[in-house]
Amino acid sequence: MSILVVGSVALDSVETPFGSADRVIGGSAVFFAAAASLLGPVRLVGVVGDDYPFEKLDFLTARGADLSGVEHAEGESFFWAARYSDDLSSRDTLETRFGVFGDFRPRVPDAFRDSRYVFLGNIDPVLQLEVLDQMREPAAVICDTMNYWIEGSREALVELLKRVDILMVNDAEARQLAGDHNLVRAARWIQERGPRLVVVKKGEHGAILFGPDWMFFVPGFPLEVIFDPTGAGDAFAGGFVGYIASVDSQDPEDLRRAMVYGSVMGSFAVESFSVDRFHSLHQKEIQSRIMGFKEMTAFEHGLVESDG
Amino acid sequence: MSILVVGSVALDSVETPFGSADRVIGGSAVFFAAAASLLGPVRLVGVVGDDYPFEKLDFLTARGADLSGVEHAEGESFFWAARYSDDLSSRDTLETRFGVFGDFRPRVPDAFRDSRYVFLGNIDPVLQLEVLDQMREPAAVICDTMNYWIEGSREALVELLKRVDILMVNDAEARQLAGDHNLVRAARWIQERGPRLVVVKKGEHGAILFGPDWMFFVPGFPLEVIFDPTGAGDAFAGGFVGYIASVDSQDPEDLRRAMVYGSVMGSFAVESFSVDRFHSLHQKEIQSRIMGFKEMTAFEHGLVESDG
Repeated sequence: MSILVVGSVALDSVETPFGSADRVIGGSAVFFAAAASLLGPVRLVGVVGDDYPFEKLDFLTARGADLSGVEHAEGESFFWAARYSDDLSSRDTLETRFGVFGDFRPRVPDAFRDSRYVFLGNIDPVLQLEVLDQMREPAAVICDTMNYWIEGSREALVELLKRVDILMVNDAEARQLAGDHNLVRAARWIQERGPRLVVVKKGEHGAILFGPDWMFFVPGFPLEVIFDPTGAGDAFAGGFVGYIASVDSQDPEDLRRAMVYGSVMGSFAVESFSVDRFHSLHQKEIQSRIMGFKEMTAFEHGLVESDG
Repeated sequence: MSILVVGSVALDSVETPFGSADRVIGGSAVFFAAAASLLGPVRLVGVVGDDYPFEKLDFLTARGADLSGVEHAEGESFFWAARYSDDLSSRDTLETRFGVFGDFRPRVPDAFRDSRYVFLGNIDPVLQLEVLDQMREPAAVICDTMNYWIEGSREALVELLKRVDILMVNDAEARQLAGDHNLVRAARWIQERGPRLVVVKKGEHGAILFGPDWMFFVPGFPLEVIFDPTGAGDAFAGGFVGYIASVDSQDPEDLRRAMVYGSVMGSFAVESFSVDRFHSLHQKEIQSRIMGFKEMTAFEHGLVESDG
């Protein structure tokens, strides 16, 4: 089933302990689409400037992605530069230039308005609301946000939450939004404001899905080399939404599998710079890593004989 | 099967956002035994001063624990005072008085020397080695340590590792010991120095078991109220060792279940001050939380139909 993603299409310059990449393709919509397009067709809405190496997105088109909603504007593309610490636990943003993304007003092409699944990447909640106003009747709206909007656009964000089915944020964002350091309570706070489901991403520590009365936990895949953490959260979202769209179901069992697909895609994202790992990623590798998650988490319950 | 635990038997004064507890029973051996004794018989070796309210350990004896290896010395018991931050993410140690624990030389009573499972709580690795010299042929030696010994007694610790089957440390300790920020590589480094298995505890983020060629991950149980994090790691160890001793097996399937018992016991430990939660803990509550872990982590793998 069709997925619409609205978000940034950027150029990233990244330094990690393993090397550096200069002006490579990135942005939330690109990482999302790189992962989701492995599971089904994706439609992109975004904006690039006249400096964007658009042919580098051809691999998405080759997988059935529709890039006709990406506006080409005069000026510079969104540019982000960052340097990671030696242990990858933190990063310094060296430069952010919004360029044409600063004036971005998402226009959803008519052919995209029937998309059954909508992923609202991390942009101004006012614009996220405008996107929803252009949609017919999506089966699910999945939404990301960040500290900048939680602080500066709380009112619009809370308004938006009423129309969101699944909020997908990291642990710091969930805590900040709810004003509660306890994740279980923070998730309940968010659920009371609209979203039926809350996915809390915890980086290398995995992610938790909070359902109406159940939870599901998926670990991060332990890797010997984490090459570049950039985009892992968006790739997670791409795997998650890509899976529920591919089965067109939000049954608990499918949502659980979606969490695993999310963590699998996040784990691939960090193995290379940019979306490089997704270029050559085969279904076999995806399925093999999913089996790895199953082996890493499955246990059979056995009762203990005890006098206690 | 019999378990020997050697470690601190302490008095703790703890302040959390929810209240404070003054000179309550604590210490690694006490938290370990509180959890492990729910799964089978435990033998304790430790030392207390003449100020220790020893009758408060009666609940352990009632569950079949043998406290005859706890030496009663003249002087003050090991005392530790700490204050947790509002979000419980950090704590300040306000006071540490070693008292009689400062001169502790563990003597394993003859009746304890045939114990099949030995848990070496976090004490000087020289003393941990002395304990092993007093044992006959344990089926498994499980060992904890901390930054103090990793820095100050590295040589004795690396010597000890040769005789340890399962090293059980937190993530910071694993990284520090191996000198590698990557947990997968750090675990391999440790395994090359003796321990067949490494359990890395990550607090609320759960724990990973590194086997010879497999891994198992158990999350922390998401709780709405974490009352007092003190002792969670030792209760984890008590659940883990208690389980493998109760089934007398170190098969991968049993080790996986042991990890879940560990996380279950850790999650109970933080629900009250001291070992209070373990006083009234019923098998039904334990089994129910284990089922909670299963529900929280189990998924069925389904292949995705895709053109990708």
